[in-house]
Amino acid sequence: MKILNLKEKTSRFLSWVLLFNLFSSAIAAQSSKDKSLLGFSAENSQKQIELETKFDSMLKPENLRNWMKRLSARPHFVGSQYGKENADFMVSLFKSWGFDAKIEQFDVLFPTPKTRILEVVSPEKFTAKLNEPALAEDSTSNQQNEQLPTYNAYSADGDVTGDVVYVNYGVPADYEELEKRGIDVKGKIVISRYGGAWRGIKPKVAAEHGAIACLIYSDPRDDGYFQGEVYPKGAWRNENGVQRGSVADMPVFPGDPTTPNVGSTKDAKRLDRKDAPTLMKIPVMPISYGDALPILRNLGGKTAPANWRGALPITYKLGGENNLKVRFKLEFNWDIKPIYNVIAKLEGSEFPDQWIIRGNHHDAWVNGAEDPISGLVSELEEARAVGELVKTGWKPKRTIIYCAWDGEEPGLLGSTEWVETHAEELKRKAVVYINTDSNGRGFLGMGGSHSLEKFINEVAKSVSDPQVKMNVWERLRAAQLVNSPASRKEIMSRRDLRIGALGSGSDFTPFLQHLGIASLNLGFGGEDGGGSYHSIYDSFDHFTRFGDTDFQYGAALSKVCGHSVLRFANAEILPFEFTNFAETVGQYVSEVIKLTDAMREETVAMNELINSGMLKSVQNPKEKYVVPKTQPPVPDLTFQPLQNTVSHLRESAEKLQTATKNKTLSPSVQRSINEILLRSERALTNEKGLPNRDWFKHQIYAPGFYTGYGVKTLPAVRESIEQRDWIEAAGQIRAVAETIENFANEIDKAVEMAKIK
Amino acid sequence: MKILNLKEKTSRFLSWVLLFNLFSSAIAAQSSKDKSLLGFSAENSQKQIELETKFDSMLKPENLRNWMKRLSARPHFVGSQYGKENADFMVSLFKSWGFDAKIEQFDVLFPTPKTRILEVVSPEKFTAKLNEPALAEDSTSNQQNEQLPTYNAYSADGDVTGDVVYVNYGVPADYEELEKRGIDVKGKIVISRYGGAWRGIKPKVAAEHGAIACLIYSDPRDDGYFQGEVYPKGAWRNENGVQRGSVADMPVFPGDPTTPNVGSTKDAKRLDRKDAPTLMKIPVMPISYGDALPILRNLGGKTAPANWRGALPITYKLGGENNLKVRFKLEFNWDIKPIYNVIAKLEGSEFPDQWIIRGNHHDAWVNGAEDPISGLVSELEEARAVGELVKTGWKPKRTIIYCAWDGEEPGLLGSTEWVETHAEELKRKAVVYINTDSNGRGFLGMGGSHSLEKFINEVAKSVSDPQVKMNVWERLRAAQLVNSPASRKEIMSRRDLRIGALGSGSDFTPFLQHLGIASLNLGFGGEDGGGSYHSIYDSFDHFTRFGDTDFQYGAALSKVCGHSVLRFANAEILPFEFTNFAETVGQYVSEVIKLTDAMREETVAMNELINSGMLKSVQNPKEKYVVPKTQPPVPDLTFQPLQNTVSHLRESAEKLQTATKNKTLSPSVQRSINEILLRSERALTNEKGLPNRDWFKHQIYAPGFYTGYGVKTLPAVRESIEQRDWIEAAGQIRAVAETIENFANEIDKAVEMAKIK
Repeated sequence: MKILNLKEKTSRFLSWVLLFNLFSSAIAAQSSKDKSLLGFSAENSQKQIELETKFDSMLKPENLRNWMKRLSARPHFVGSQYGKENADFMVSLFKSWGFDAKIEQFDVLFPTPKTRILEVVSPEKFTAKLNEPALAEDSTSNQQNEQLPTYNAYSADGDVTGDVVYVNYGVPADYEELEKRGIDVKGKIVISRYGGAWRGIKPKVAAEHGAIACLIYSDPRDDGYFQGEVYPKGAWRNENGVQRGSVADMPVFPGDPTTPNVGSTKDAKRLDRKDAPTLMKIPVMPISYGDALPILRNLGGKTAPANWRGALPITYKLGGENNLKVRFKLEFNWDIKPIYNVIAKLEGSEFPDQWIIRGNHHDAWVNGAEDPISGLVSELEEARAVGELVKTGWKPKRTIIYCAWDGEEPGLLGSTEWVETHAEELKRKAVVYINTDSNGRGFLGMGGSHSLEKFINEVAKSVSDPQVKMNVWERLRAAQLVNSPASRKEIMSRRDLRIGALGSGSDFTPFLQHLGIASLNLGFGGEDGGGSYHSIYDSFDHFTRFGDTDFQYGAALSKVCGHSVLRFANAEILPFEFTNFAETVGQYVSEVIKLTDAMREETVAMNELINSGMLKSVQNPKEKYVVPKTQPPVPDLTFQPLQNTVSHLRESAEKLQTATKNKTLSPSVQRSINEILLRSERALTNEKGLPNRDWFKHQIYAPGFYTGYGVKTLPAVRESIEQRDWIEAAGQIRAVAETIENFANEIDKAVEMAKIK
Repeated sequence: MKILNLKEKTSRFLSWVLLFNLFSSAIAAQSSKDKSLLGFSAENSQKQIELETKFDSMLKPENLRNWMKRLSARPHFVGSQYGKENADFMVSLFKSWGFDAKIEQFDVLFPTPKTRILEVVSPEKFTAKLNEPALAEDSTSNQQNEQLPTYNAYSADGDVTGDVVYVNYGVPADYEELEKRGIDVKGKIVISRYGGAWRGIKPKVAAEHGAIACLIYSDPRDDGYFQGEVYPKGAWRNENGVQRGSVADMPVFPGDPTTPNVGSTKDAKRLDRKDAPTLMKIPVMPISYGDALPILRNLGGKTAPANWRGALPITYKLGGENNLKVRFKLEFNWDIKPIYNVIAKLEGSEFPDQWIIRGNHHDAWVNGAEDPISGLVSELEEARAVGELVKTGWKPKRTIIYCAWDGEEPGLLGSTEWVETHAEELKRKAVVYINTDSNGRGFLGMGGSHSLEKFINEVAKSVSDPQVKMNVWERLRAAQLVNSPASRKEIMSRRDLRIGALGSGSDFTPFLQHLGIASLNLGFGGEDGGGSYHSIYDSFDHFTRFGDTDFQYGAALSKVCGHSVLRFANAEILPFEFTNFAETVGQYVSEVIKLTDAMREETVAMNELINSGMLKSVQNPKEKYVVPKTQPPVPDLTFQPLQNTVSHLRESAEKLQTATKNKTLSPSVQRSINEILLRSERALTNEKGLPNRDWFKHQIYAPGFYTGYGVKTLPAVRESIEQRDWIEAAGQIRAVAETIENFANEIDKAVEMAKIK
């Protein structure tokens, strides 16, 4: 090299090397010096770590295995006999571990199919099987008498015959594509593939566009042989596998569709079914790719856009051209069924009215070994160890409540009805809700309130990875560094890993988004893949071949959640932290500003391309093309109120951090600060709720109205912008800014409190 | 809206609107005022436009149709009887139009198959069909006696049996993925899908990695039912369709593999076959997806990475685990065959030694209606109209030479041998080479020397689109605005549309990259799609159903190329323009700097991830993973020589523009300037050629050593960097800067010339 006199480093190169080295030193320094846990004095931190070490030593993966085998031995859906047996079994377990455990029953609308017919009438006769066959390799797959058939809960009854249109994932953008090609779904049956959005969005958007029915199939590209070998040879969905699931319009409200806002107790006042806004308006049913193929290969019409095509060996077409007639009939038993939440309480010794709530659902669509039992058994083992700790003399300062929810699958029924029933008490007492659902092998997924970001980062560092010699936080960070080259600098320069904002899809929703209880959602995954979701093949046999086969990650999840519960139960100052929250909200504000700016530019450009005729001119004249309408220009919304309040929030958060970190505060000051912290997340709610869906009160996080699971942050502002409702957006900017201002004011109160000697 | 007092526009919004409006006005102003054509006085511009109008009125699409039917009536590959008949037919046509036309024959190595066997030995016996069946819907598909079998020209002979590994597209990056998974192809047969790079790269890279043979199949995702209905129902490749094609190592040199640098005339000295560096070292054969399926579905081993998977209804695996044995045998007739270039000259009245060369090949793999006849018939009609103009009394100032090349398909044989034979004369006389190959329906594709960018933009504005009411330049610009949102501002603010840099894949390569003759490659496409390429189904029936069915775009191509030829033949000052070239080279320099910086950062990051163990830690422990080696750090190359010379070039180009635009120069000054312009592109070559491939002499454009068709700009610099050969890169930066400096000096000479009164 010397002949070239090449300098070894540029300044950019140097800055990188420095960043790497600095970060490594920072990590080292942190682990050697910074011994205090968030919310604990140095002395108590040491005790807490010892407690957690003891807790960890009690965990036994074989318990998880045995309970999974027991709990998934027979189908245990809402209203099933085995579901009730499971609930009773868990009550007895919790009691044996020293908890005050009981069943809380609700009565919910739960439709099950009476008739299901799907036939291709022409050109080729075909009757869909609508059946998942038993497999010799799967010992519970032959329990046909007890299995729920393949269906979507809360579909409408109906008997329709019509043309079929393929709508890709069936989200609004897909209908814009169809419209450009002159294809209308009015009076037709749509067929959509699973994916792209929560399944309930598909029939909702189809109905909005005038479709008379909706079929949803699992394409082998997203969920079948394209991904890997199919079951029973491999883990993936075979040609007969079907994904059951709810299609209630949960972005409006979850829970029993006939009892919004109130618990569906025996004597609850119920909406008439015809008035229940979340019941789907058209018949909808999930089918396998085996049943979908004879429909899709006869669709005819235009070739589907490239990113609409799946992995079936056909040319994907859009249909809608009268070459295919399908008959589709559904009838349901519209029964009221009991659900059985298991609630197990361990009263706090010092602050019994401060509740740490921990939950996982127990109902499944069929045997549900992975969903939800893999998460549930982890919670059970965690609770058992907590009970063991109590038996050794330890007592939680705060009350711990373990919950096993029923009816999550049809619509977060158990958690929602419980939250609605106990709303006032929960608003006063709930400190935090920690949720799990399914669990797998691989990397820790962390979602939740960003006031808990620092906390859960710290917790994650306290749990060793079962497969590699690092803690689960380090492995997650390594994965982000490896897989996200564009974010490397941020990951390296930031002390905490970002956690995901919560949308919906599990039982945290009523806690977080209805009541404003700070929440976490945790679980491992990424190395277990497979396509058993909501089918009869989600079994003990499948899980122990392809999932967290030795339950090591189940035990690791017990640790992550157990440490979280124990720290919250014992902390001197509740371990909320708001500087990360402030920074994150600042990012969200930047995002909606950028979104608006991008829409403004795109609107000018598209309008010009439309008005000048350029857009039309570049379309293939041999294919039909309907030029989209121009859009009114995007006005100059002012985001100043949000920007101002974020500045305030950032300052307040920093002041509180300074006022409490490594400070010795008197017990009475601690108590006063905790009173504020306990309710802080409540200040992020607005009683009026979100536009057109007042059940959702949180102003920072909500499931998207058109995504279902996917989160929309600053939802009132962001969705108004996305819907181009500029008047609403301007109003919501002010309203959300006011909510955040209230929240910052609460933190300021805590800062003042901390000044008292 | 008024209640909100929303400002209508931000400054960004305003700047956009202004940009749109300004641009529209600029366009209008341009078309009304700027009447002078590049290289012509205002007066002569008017005459030239009248000449082109007359030329256009003579073009008859039915001629294109009739000639296509005639020329594609029977297979006409190298050495076929019908190929010779076509050549004779064209000579007689050219003669009848007043050209001095003749055949120039060369004798070339052209192997054809004697034996082709492909069998799955185990686990399931299967013998590949290796045959494209005749179809009732395709009237020439039954000419089996005259068709070439499906094969890759210049494959090695061989008879091998072995395990099979799936290598995706078979480019170097794919082997890095295999290596990480611990899979070695040494001693194995690889199967690659078509696409991702030119086909010849696949066996070359396979051989570099020790593979004993290579199969190349057409995956239905890239070239089959995934794209659209298959032939004969639709245009796309069916399960029996096979893509023939050459696998000579053309990035080293094209033309007869045994006669590098010299014409393969009867008495040419030939390399022994064993010493011919571009002959493939291992047996290689193309197969249909019908024949590939039984191999791929039995591969076994690990699941292939997601972006390696195609559209066959299987789980794509990597193989290499002894579960599949394949036997593959090939034997060739290694014959010397005659090829027949058609050369038709029309001598210039003022400057007979300034040659405007126009070409399209005439040989096909089978019937070749699209490839190459669709382009060839456009050239023929163009030549006929030029001949007609001469009959009306007009005479070109410069010599026009129309060429129909033979042997393009096996390796640009006809054009390369002709260029090598006439190299010295061409260096003195050739002004420009204008190439076409296949033609379709849709948008004008413009590739070429950037000294011609302004010229061809101007030409494109002179031709109306056959389908929409705008010229072909406006339609192309509209398509770029619609399809490339990120580039909209640049497209709107730039007077000219960017043209593509030329890699390889057609007959421009010897002209441009061996001799340094400024070249263009032109053709329409984008709305005709289909999968008949290099199969027996590339027929008149296929083309007239799915291609440019009414030959309107064929006629439009005659206009684009005809106007180009006529302008070059008549211009006062040769219409080269160097400011666009300078700007483009400046971009290339920025690209290689950014590439180096990005590699430097990535190398630091990856080395750290490797050394720290993080990379290994995030791999699934249940799957084999081989950690890649760390790389030496990327030194701080100085690009200053290139940056300096680009500054010089930019200034020179601007000075020449100022000195010649709208200036009246004396004929003798014009002549002197033209002498310089004629040879200007030659100054971009370096007699030493590129590192390890001295046949390629152009220092700005070359086909990539590992892409084949895809261009590498500043190839000596860019490829050294990509290969991490930092010493070579540093030397090439200086050498290429010197070449560009010489080029700028030539322009400076022209500037000085223009100052002479």
